[in-house]
Amino acid sequence: MNHKIAVFPGSFDPVTLGHVDIMQRVLSLFDKIYVVIGINGNKVPLFSVEQRMEWLKAIFRNESRVAIAAHRGLTIDFCKQVKAGFIVRGLRNSTDYCYERELAQVNRDLCSDIETLFITSTPQYAHLSSSMIRELIQFQADVSPYLPDIVRF
Amino acid sequence: MNHKIAVFPGSFDPVTLGHVDIMQRVLSLFDKIYVVIGINGNKVPLFSVEQRMEWLKAIFRNESRVAIAAHRGLTIDFCKQVKAGFIVRGLRNSTDYCYERELAQVNRDLCSDIETLFITSTPQYAHLSSSMIRELIQFQADVSPYLPDIVRF
Amino acid sequence: MNHKIAVFPGSFDPVTLGHVDIMQRVLSLFDKIYVVIGINGNKVPLFSVEQRMEWLKAIFRNESRVAIAAHRGLTIDFCKQVKAGFIVRGLRNSTDYCYERELAQVNRDLCSDIETLFITSTPQYAHLSSSMIRELIQFQADVSPYLPDIVRF
Amino acid sequence: MNHKIAVFPGSFDPVTLGHVDIMQRVLSLFDKIYVVIGINGNKVPLFSVEQRMEWLKAIFRNESRVAIAAHRGLTIDFCKQVKAGFIVRGLRNSTDYCYERELAQVNRDLCSDIETLFITSTPQYAHLSSSMIRELIQFQADVSPYLPDIVRF
Amino acid sequence: MNHKIAVFPGSFDPVTLGHVDIMQRVLSLFDKIYVVIGINGNKVPLFSVEQRMEWLKAIFRNESRVAIAAHRGLTIDFCKQVKAGFIVRGLRNSTDYCYERELAQVNRDLCSDIETLFITSTPQYAHLSSSMIRELIQFQADVSPYLPDIVRF
Amino acid sequence: MNHKIAVFPGSFDPVTLGHVDIMQRVLSLFDKIYVVIGINGNKVPLFSVEQRMEWLKAIFRNESRVAIAAHRGLTIDFCKQVKAGFIVRGLRNSTDYCYERELAQVNRDLCSDIETLFITSTPQYAHLSSSMIRELIQFQADVSPYLPDIVRF
Repeated sequence: MNHKIAVFPGSFDPVTLGHVDIMQRVLSLFDKIYVVIGINGNKVPLFSVEQRMEWLKAIFRNESRVAIAAHRGLTIDFCKQVKAGFIVRGLRNSTDYCYERELAQVNRDLCSDIETLFITSTPQYAHLSSSMIRELIQFQADVSPYLPDIVRF
Repeated sequence: MNHKIAVFPGSFDPVTLGHVDIMQRVLSLFDKIYVVIGINGNKVPLFSVEQRMEWLKAIFRNESRVAIAAHRGLTIDFCKQVKAGFIVRGLRNSTDYCYERELAQVNRDLCSDIETLFITSTPQYAHLSSSMIRELIQFQADVSPYLPDIVRF
Repeated sequence: MNHKIAVFPGSFDPVTLGHVDIMQRVLSLFDKIYVVIGINGNKVPLFSVEQRMEWLKAIFRNESRVAIAAHRGLTIDFCKQVKAGFIVRGLRNSTDYCYERELAQVNRDLCSDIETLFITSTPQYAHLSSSMIRELIQFQADVSPYLPDIVRF
Repeated sequence: MNHKIAVFPGSFDPVTLGHVDIMQRVLSLFDKIYVVIGINGNKVPLFSVEQRMEWLKAIFRNESRVAIAAHRGLTIDFCKQVKAGFIVRGLRNSTDYCYERELAQVNRDLCSDIETLFITSTPQYAHLSSSMIRELIQFQADVSPYLPDIVRF
Repeated sequence: MNHKIAVFPGSFDPVTLGHVDIMQRVLSLFDKIYVVIGINGNKVPLFSVEQRMEWLKAIFRNESRVAIAAHRGLTIDFCKQVKAGFIVRGLRNSTDYCYERELAQVNRDLCSDIETLFITSTPQYAHLSSSMIRELIQFQADVSPYLPDIVRF
Repeated sequence: MNHKIAVFPGSFDPVTLGHVDIMQRVLSLFDKIYVVIGINGNKVPLFSVEQRMEWLKAIFRNESRVAIAAHRGLTIDFCKQVKAGFIVRGLRNSTDYCYERELAQVNRDLCSDIETLFITSTPQYAHLSSSMIRELIQFQADVSPYLPDIVRF
């Protein structure tokens, strides 16, 4: 695995300022970061994969080190394909932490060459989860303060 | 700050296999990692700074990217001195997480150019804290399975 | 917003002694508390809105400061309608806390004039969630010790 | 209730090395432990009850104190049927703990003669939940390192 | 007890923006709030009681509903003296929550007429504890961004 | 080790109703339970070892299966002396859980034949820690509702 390549996986349904914040804070560590939209056959997303890819591409259009992709299957399999040595994840709270710890360990079991790096969310974004935002959207709340300017619908 | 330089701060009183494990897992990310023994005037350590530096130097003697140092004061001040762009910390459990999150945010407040990266401890080391080991030592327990071979006393 | 008016939102599916306990402990703070049944289009409740309203009305029939309502949409929108300055919530455990903290902050983002007040549940009710009780009901367990006398079915 | 009889309830969908580890560590406490597959009408399991029973029977075939059963309904009702004085559960992390605490207290409310005993999972199994493993299976990951030799599909 | 009177207890060693934020958010609920500096014989404070009282008086000098006091002993005894019906506390994270829950319940045991109300800290103050700030001061960090303008030393 | 022998370690400074509750709930599992007062050279207890032993002996005077002891050193060493196969501990909350998990794993590392069994505290005792009670005593609070009748001073 190449330690200069990382994967930042998520549902990005929708992309939030929290996602962008984490990317910007770890970008300098790598030569290439793949922002990967996980496609999970069991869940019906609110926004199409195409829409989410478009948003991510627009947000990072001036950042040559960032590539956008979508992947059906395990994140670790995508990492192997692109030879990424690291997975990047944000930590928002301690419930989050418990789940992320399990996932990171499973990924190490599946491929011992790939490590997960965590970064704690910036305070003003710590309460932002995509699921919370989807619920707000459903009830017509104005979620624009939580989203990059380009994410409008 | 230089994003190829990191600081791994701790008391290392004593150095454990958990510390070494974290170092090995993040080493490839950086050109230089300073392992920094924090000197806290309020606490009386079990092992002298000299002893701890000697252990760390011996453990990483073949690793040219690792430098060992001791620092009295805030970790962030040491980071500024060596122009480190990242601090590296291990996360062992959710109580740990709450404290580490606070510390990381304080450090960002003090210097917005320095980020803290976290890595979750390997399961077999997740229950190893230096304070637990000091307590075991005090009661003459055999703590050698928790320590690098070189850490003997 | 009027700081003498509060909203106590929930699913109340069914109403438990835990809900009643929280109401009684905060009632003196306000001139009016709206107990609001949240209607969530995505979930099929076990008991009808009518049934839940009837129970709540009966429980608080002698309490002139309590009003019962049902609301489809965001709690914060209901608060604005009735000019409530506070939302009241019980905290049962630390997983609860993580979720409630996020929700409270989202509500402050949506309307900075409305604050969420928390009260920790009384020990003997701390393990009572409506979802746990629904599961017990489904398996024909006797849940009457968890419910106000009037809540029978 | 008979304090020499225990119940170890779960979905066992599939049986993991974590389950076996917990059984082996508490077995000496009891004359009889019923490993009970909970049948929950609301969830569609990945593996049939028959398949799960077969695995459990094969795993514990040489252990005369272990009996395998399936039960539709509350665990506590099964305990009463077999006069078990104890329920045995593993604890994997602090989120787990919050839920398990609630469940244990509900069971004491329903039957004050039955206690729940907890044992913390062995570090290398602490990140293994059946739900995580089902997700891995769905994406064709090799989960065999997490499973007893006999659990193959 | 008078439900229009509250007590906001703390060490206030030193007073932070986090403390002021919590006061401002609950002030409208009460006719009188006593900000009470707890004097604990076992701990040596960084700032004298006189200094802390002076800061608090200056901060709330235009707020006729706020009174500043110092108290040696249990908070609940002070509440009884001033007939306060409520104690107000901020919640910063889930470790905090566990401790605060215990304290609130002990206070209810000691005096069932006094309830503790919690409010979650504003994100940008969630990582500010007085103990963290004291540690920063000790190492000559600039903590002024965390403190009201009047708190200088 | 003998699986019919257990050790219930603690400071018991003082003995609370919470301790007695846990003992009563696990007593039927064992032929012998040693209630062991841990003597820690670093901490000055509020009550003498003699006083604490006297209380425990009085509380369990009619329970032939219970033996009272005091031990300086590691709990695991006492377990080996009396050939206890199990350590019993109560769990009060999730912060507790994190610490207890570590301790249990350290004890398994030191002696793989000894397991720690946990039982969650009864709700009305979940907020009772000996340290909280010592603090209350110091401020002359009436702590008698938290203590067995025989524990008076």
